Amino acid sequence: MKAALGVDIGGTSIKLALVSESGEILDQTSVLTYGDKDPDVTVGQISDYFRDVKTRFPSVRVVGTGIGVPGTVALDGGTVSFPPNLKGWGIVRLGDMVAEATGLPAFVENDANVAALGEGIYGAGMDVPSFVMVTLGTGVGGGIVIDKKIYRGVFGAAGEIGHISIDHNGPTCNCSNKGCLERYIGQRYIIDYAMEIKDKYHSSPVHDILAERALEVKDLAHLAVRGDELAITVLNRTGHLLGVGLTSIMHILDIRTFIIGGGVAGAGDHIFRPAEHYVKSHALAPMRSAFKMIPASLGNQAGVLGAAGLVFKS
Amino acid sequence: MKAALGVDIGGTSIKLALVSESGEILDQTSVLTYGDKDPDVTVGQISDYFRDVKTRFPSVRVVGTGIGVPGTVALDGGTVSFPPNLKGWGIVRLGDMVAEATGLPAFVENDANVAALGEGIYGAGMDVPSFVMVTLGTGVGGGIVIDKKIYRGVFGAAGEIGHISIDHNGPTCNCSNKGCLERYIGQRYIIDYAMEIKDKYHSSPVHDILAERALEVKDLAHLAVRGDELAITVLNRTGHLLGVGLTSIMHILDIRTFIIGGGVAGAGDHIFRPAEHYVKSHALAPMRSAFKMIPASLGNQAGVLGAAGLVFKS
Repeated sequence: MKAALGVDIGGTSIKLALVSESGEILDQTSVLTYGDKDPDVTVGQISDYFRDVKTRFPSVRVVGTGIGVPGTVALDGGTVSFPPNLKGWGIVRLGDMVAEATGLPAFVENDANVAALGEGIYGAGMDVPSFVMVTLGTGVGGGIVIDKKIYRGVFGAAGEIGHISIDHNGPTCNCSNKGCLERYIGQRYIIDYAMEIKDKYHSSPVHDILAERALEVKDLAHLAVRGDELAITVLNRTGHLLGVGLTSIMHILDIRTFIIGGGVAGAGDHIFRPAEHYVKSHALAPMRSAFKMIPASLGNQAGVLGAAGLVFKS
Repeated sequence: MKAALGVDIGGTSIKLALVSESGEILDQTSVLTYGDKDPDVTVGQISDYFRDVKTRFPSVRVVGTGIGVPGTVALDGGTVSFPPNLKGWGIVRLGDMVAEATGLPAFVENDANVAALGEGIYGAGMDVPSFVMVTLGTGVGGGIVIDKKIYRGVFGAAGEIGHISIDHNGPTCNCSNKGCLERYIGQRYIIDYAMEIKDKYHSSPVHDILAERALEVKDLAHLAVRGDELAITVLNRTGHLLGVGLTSIMHILDIRTFIIGGGVAGAGDHIFRPAEHYVKSHALAPMRSAFKMIPASLGNQAGVLGAAGLVFKS
């Protein structure tokens, strides 16, 4: 059987998996990320896993390694430059290093793009040639897939949809732009908004939670299902503003299918419905009918699956 | 010599030209648009011109007709559906009709895309494989060129950059979306803003103009050069908001060259400089350095040249 290593490098952990061409995860594990150490450490972790699975799966033919990294990858498909969450890395020829350590081809791609590719090959986008994958979490990430291929832009940094401005007078984002989408619907900003309006909702169970610990988006999701008005208000606003962003993206790209993943997307219809309502009542009329939001289906395995997909698609 | 007919159908007039493959305009004319009549009338005007140039230029070999239309063109490259400014047209197989009338291949494309192609083949974008053409006029139009080809999106309607929202709480646009870029920097909205703030600038020559006739953007351009504070304020705000829009487009597409045309772009540096300043201080840091705004160079001939280019590129 043919298989590939799928590696998903995150800020705190690295997911590693052995994936068959049909998308079956034959084996998987997770190790700590040493982002402040030399990148050789990470390469060592990957090649250790490679040797390990070769021993444990003697009948599987491993044909290469695909790697998702949190940062911009040069158009050579292998070089990572100063990923913000891997402080010990400068300009790293990660593809070449892993290829050398394993003796097999290695492919590197931005993590949001890899997740989009995973959903496209094995998940919610299997039957959709062109879509935008939106990841709602700490940040708001994007991956653009056009005709089954990742659209990378001229320098490899396309899909930064969290940093489109939805209010030119809005608050300054971490990135320095004004009123970025992420500045409203990134996880902590959703919570900030709940804190801002909570006193108008005296009887909300949110106050009981806050008496004990910090509030999380998943609390709001649970409370919204039980009809809590504060939670519903906060999530509806999140969905509404997501809809504003999706409308702009659709107007530029004329891609009308959006696959929505990430932790915040777990709030489901309380976010999806107002987003859809915004687009269907505010987008250019001829575009409305084909608009579609689909929940991502691979959860946090989109990364390793998409990374393995990099190998099979190459 | 090889040449093509380039046809640029506007709401009030149709520009027709005979264009050599090197982009020389061998002949050109303009006729009235009968947008409320049957499309056969327009096809007749095109084939009349075709017969006319064949007689007048016997040594030129005409190889086909390219046509820019104000509306969405289906991905078949020939069918136009309900163009808003041609009320007599429903779903029109314009490409087939013109091909039949002339006996030569005919290619149809949205007018903003055609103008972008014109600049790309013969104008400011000749050395730029990927760029976004921004047309500042009554509306704010866009044409996306990726690797020398028009990017049309899944349904052929990509590049509607005038209708990205830069303020989710903003005023409602004609298109029904909130706070569209066009709703701030479309021609009439620039004038609206000047009217809104004019009383703060008692000594501005704008008041003398208004005593006699309606204010136009080109008046503001002239006055700005002479140091009029009202004109400078209005145009700087236009540029600033254009910069907000360009930043969002760049973050999605990772295309960093923008070619700026249309009547409003005639205000030059008073719009260009604040736009550039916004992008260079607010875009994601790694994207800033390569950002470039270039004035369009073909003026209102971009349409016929790009239309002829459709033929040569096919």
